[in-house]
Amino acid sequence: MPTYKAPIRDNLFLLNDVFRIDQHADIPGYSEMTPDIIEATLAEAAKLSEQVLTPLNRIGDEEGCHRHDDGSVTTPKGFKEAFKMFTEGGWMGMSAPAEFGGQELPAVLSGIVSEFLASSNLAFMMFSVLTQGASSALLDHASTEQKKLYLPNMVSGKWTGTMNLTEAHSGTDLGILRTKAKPQSDGSYKISGTKIFISAGEHDMSENIIHLVLARIEGAPAGVHGISLFVVPKFIPNADGSLSGNNNVSCGSIEHKMGIHGNCTCVMNFDDATGWLVGEANHGLNAMFTMMNHARLSVGILGVGLSEVAYQNAAAYAKDRLQGRSLSGVKFPDKIADPIIVHPDVRRSLMSIRAVTEAGRALVVWTGLRHDIALRSQDAKAREAAEDHMGLITPIIKAFNSDFGFENAVMAQQVYGGHGYIADNGMEQFVRDARISQIYEGANGIQALDLASRKLSMNGGRAVKALFSEVDVYLKTQPDQDGMAVYIKPVREALSRLQQATIWIAKHSAENHDEIGAASYDYLRLFGLTAYGYMWCRMVEAARRARPAANGDMAQFLDAKLTTARFFVQRILPETAALLTRIEAGAASMMELPVEAF
Amino acid sequence: MPTYKAPIRDNLFLLNDVFRIDQHADIPGYSEMTPDIIEATLAEAAKLSEQVLTPLNRIGDEEGCHRHDDGSVTTPKGFKEAFKMFTEGGWMGMSAPAEFGGQELPAVLSGIVSEFLASSNLAFMMFSVLTQGASSALLDHASTEQKKLYLPNMVSGKWTGTMNLTEAHSGTDLGILRTKAKPQSDGSYKISGTKIFISAGEHDMSENIIHLVLARIEGAPAGVHGISLFVVPKFIPNADGSLSGNNNVSCGSIEHKMGIHGNCTCVMNFDDATGWLVGEANHGLNAMFTMMNHARLSVGILGVGLSEVAYQNAAAYAKDRLQGRSLSGVKFPDKIADPIIVHPDVRRSLMSIRAVTEAGRALVVWTGLRHDIALRSQDAKAREAAEDHMGLITPIIKAFNSDFGFENAVMAQQVYGGHGYIADNGMEQFVRDARISQIYEGANGIQALDLASRKLSMNGGRAVKALFSEVDVYLKTQPDQDGMAVYIKPVREALSRLQQATIWIAKHSAENHDEIGAASYDYLRLFGLTAYGYMWCRMVEAARRARPAANGDMAQFLDAKLTTARFFVQRILPETAALLTRIEAGAASMMELPVEAF
Repeated sequence: MPTYKAPIRDNLFLLNDVFRIDQHADIPGYSEMTPDIIEATLAEAAKLSEQVLTPLNRIGDEEGCHRHDDGSVTTPKGFKEAFKMFTEGGWMGMSAPAEFGGQELPAVLSGIVSEFLASSNLAFMMFSVLTQGASSALLDHASTEQKKLYLPNMVSGKWTGTMNLTEAHSGTDLGILRTKAKPQSDGSYKISGTKIFISAGEHDMSENIIHLVLARIEGAPAGVHGISLFVVPKFIPNADGSLSGNNNVSCGSIEHKMGIHGNCTCVMNFDDATGWLVGEANHGLNAMFTMMNHARLSVGILGVGLSEVAYQNAAAYAKDRLQGRSLSGVKFPDKIADPIIVHPDVRRSLMSIRAVTEAGRALVVWTGLRHDIALRSQDAKAREAAEDHMGLITPIIKAFNSDFGFENAVMAQQVYGGHGYIADNGMEQFVRDARISQIYEGANGIQALDLASRKLSMNGGRAVKALFSEVDVYLKTQPDQDGMAVYIKPVREALSRLQQATIWIAKHSAENHDEIGAASYDYLRLFGLTAYGYMWCRMVEAARRARPAANGDMAQFLDAKLTTARFFVQRILPETAALLTRIEAGAASMMELPVEAF
Repeated sequence: MPTYKAPIRDNLFLLNDVFRIDQHADIPGYSEMTPDIIEATLAEAAKLSEQVLTPLNRIGDEEGCHRHDDGSVTTPKGFKEAFKMFTEGGWMGMSAPAEFGGQELPAVLSGIVSEFLASSNLAFMMFSVLTQGASSALLDHASTEQKKLYLPNMVSGKWTGTMNLTEAHSGTDLGILRTKAKPQSDGSYKISGTKIFISAGEHDMSENIIHLVLARIEGAPAGVHGISLFVVPKFIPNADGSLSGNNNVSCGSIEHKMGIHGNCTCVMNFDDATGWLVGEANHGLNAMFTMMNHARLSVGILGVGLSEVAYQNAAAYAKDRLQGRSLSGVKFPDKIADPIIVHPDVRRSLMSIRAVTEAGRALVVWTGLRHDIALRSQDAKAREAAEDHMGLITPIIKAFNSDFGFENAVMAQQVYGGHGYIADNGMEQFVRDARISQIYEGANGIQALDLASRKLSMNGGRAVKALFSEVDVYLKTQPDQDGMAVYIKPVREALSRLQQATIWIAKHSAENHDEIGAASYDYLRLFGLTAYGYMWCRMVEAARRARPAANGDMAQFLDAKLTTARFFVQRILPETAALLTRIEAGAASMMELPVEAF
């Protein structure tokens, strides 16, 4: 069974050495984030993840969730108790406002905790992500009364939340959804329709489940501009927080799916269920995006989390498994064979996983910092820049990190050889679990389109110009000698390819809109690789700064950063050249075949 | 549930138009392969695959195999009956010698049938592949008596076969296996040991199971040069073919694994089981490689088969699923939304799968032809060249086709969005099933090492020189104008990169053997892409030749070849540049970290 040790040191290195949160005391709340508090928080989260959630991960996969004839759903053995520990530890509301019982800790810190949760138990983590996402949508869009009614119990985890968007015929295309809302004389609505793929739609871990539901008010315009968001609780709460009778919401069935068996994916039936409008009528998509962006960042984080745990187990196996002899001469003559970590191709796999996992984590932490600026800064200009950054980077974090999370899980499984295919060893579960991250919260193709068609041109390209300029200035101010050039030069090339691709798309999409779609996936990958390259330069800079004073383990840790960065720029970044060539090939050969030829 | 239509036309195009089997009448048996006979054979195989095996594929996945307390194993419902139809149709022995009841059809034809089987039901196909592999090992290495005793019943499928290589501590490294063989006075041996990962090790589909077992004769030298091959039947056959009592062979358990649930992966216990030496003592590895090479080609074929069926279902879904509107303007104003095939990124996925599936199929058919020359030609020189080719191409077909098979299954699943993650739709089964192909019969990293460290330098590099020269001459003789240049030029560049990488490895591995291992995976991929490029040129040439006389469906079929070829050279082949850069980066950053840093 897989084991897990939360990578606290890696995250502290990012917070303290790379992104210097000590220099961000101007962000409200940051001055209280002393190194002690940060370390203690992460240590607690690590304990919960390593000791409670990790052992439940295989159980969750094997047992799955069960729906009973009365529509109730049982979660796997131990999940309920773990959830109690999770909520009692205050983790559900760790970055929620104090006003509603939250701890108001920075987003950058809750992002790191999410990584630990994802590594240890993705199915479990999703219960909290969805509740936090629903809470943030209510926080941003609900009325004061609604907030008072729902948020304290959701922040504490007494109640959980869901997102009800998808219908059988309506996934990406929310404009065609059919769930209806009939206005009632008391200001409430009767909601009717069937939603599918509802994670944590029904379960036994909380006293109430607060469904946020997209529906169309009778007579609303067709398309996305006629969609509204409703809060539809499983049990309708009274003003005093006590629960009155059952609402007409029920779980019709649970999907049998490839992975994340520990989380119940429900078909939810709303049968004249009572709901209340959240925010403005016909502006549901706005409110939904608050949830969605939270969820998308979480998906990017889980890519890092699954990569990390898959890596740890593959590395342990590679050091332990004796098979064959090193090509460059026997390394352990006293053993029956050398451990497979002597084989270059095993190293290639392990180094590849490390190189992207560590860069992906840096991207998450860097973006978490911007997230806090966007949420908390007093400086409107800084907030705007941070929001720009978030908008631009969210699809990249979601899609690129999740693509790599899956590829890494596959590579880690491969290190195990045949043993990786066996369920008991748990490596194949990481692959099955990671697979969903490329699909849910907007399939990665949609993220690519969001980036290339919306985010690039928003506000006249303000966000992308700012980012390119930041990276460009950074690379120019780095010394070309003293060992920095080996890192800087390939990243500069990658940036220039990315800029070239950006111009190419802008130019060619004017004539033919399909060119955006044709370029989008490769473009997102090119963007992601370049961003990772930038992250590696930042990490190298910090490692080189800290290296002279370091010794022992810490010296080895910093040296490993430099080696891994070299591996990244030499062996992973070259893909950017191929991506640019592909983008510049254009849409013709992709779009040429008539539909009936497929 | 997925559907399947066997791609007969694509295979006929390869046989008749691209590789011109009519020009190979000098290969014994080929002159009888009239177009009628070929088409009728493929049509029969298609019927079995589409109507019998395809519907059993989900059942096999859901039910799996079950071991009972007495050690017996039940296969999924319907498998036994399907196997009866399969054997009664003569498919098991379709390319076995007539002497033992086979149909002696060419290998190139049985390769195509294997593709159909893999598409429709991989778990089922493995029962036949292993029997055929075991038969071919006996055919090449067993005594006349042994052949007479075992082959007729294995060729008919009355008995099935297995390969018993792996032990818990000994997978790739067969030199350390521990299973023992004690010589008996009657010339037989007592075999003792435990083998794992034995596909079809125990089941209810055949009257007997013939285990081919690698073991070490008492007192044999350590390492691979002390390994012998034994035939160990489940029931010991009498000379008249009747069966005497149980041998001491039993299935200890069945593995729970990621996929191919319809095939029972057994732990096999040999407890003083009676076995007989096959071939020479201590030369078991040779005999094993006969099986292994058969199995490796089959794995390459199954990459094509899974890609094909995954593609067919993704394409059908993309034409059917209505979601969103085309970027270049509404295509179906009367529908609630456009079918998702209008979206460039969906096209990108479908075209990517096609482009590599069709090239992979061509590589299989081309190699099948060489296989027949190697097996049947009267011309020793031609046989030698064909064997060289087989040796060189086998690891590429195994690893490259299976890597693409998996990547394609993942891409096809992605086209389904969330519905691809749901078990009932069957797309996730293709992913789980395809995953094994990268692992078994020598993990793909081992194939890469076999190619880069053994096959390149064999006989002074004779095989690789011959292949490079063939491709080089071919590309030079193709006209640069008339629309051929768009295909020829990128393939020429790929070939030149491959040649450059080959020289780089030869040069640098002399100083440091780890350089071979460090380059190997990228090198195999570079080789595979270049080989696919060559296949596309051959297909383009044939399509252009046939185009003027074609109309209707056939014209569209040929036009699609040209478009898909362009997609391949423009959007997939550019990866070769990145691969060369990676190879030339060398082993340093890969091998530098101390073991304890992992």
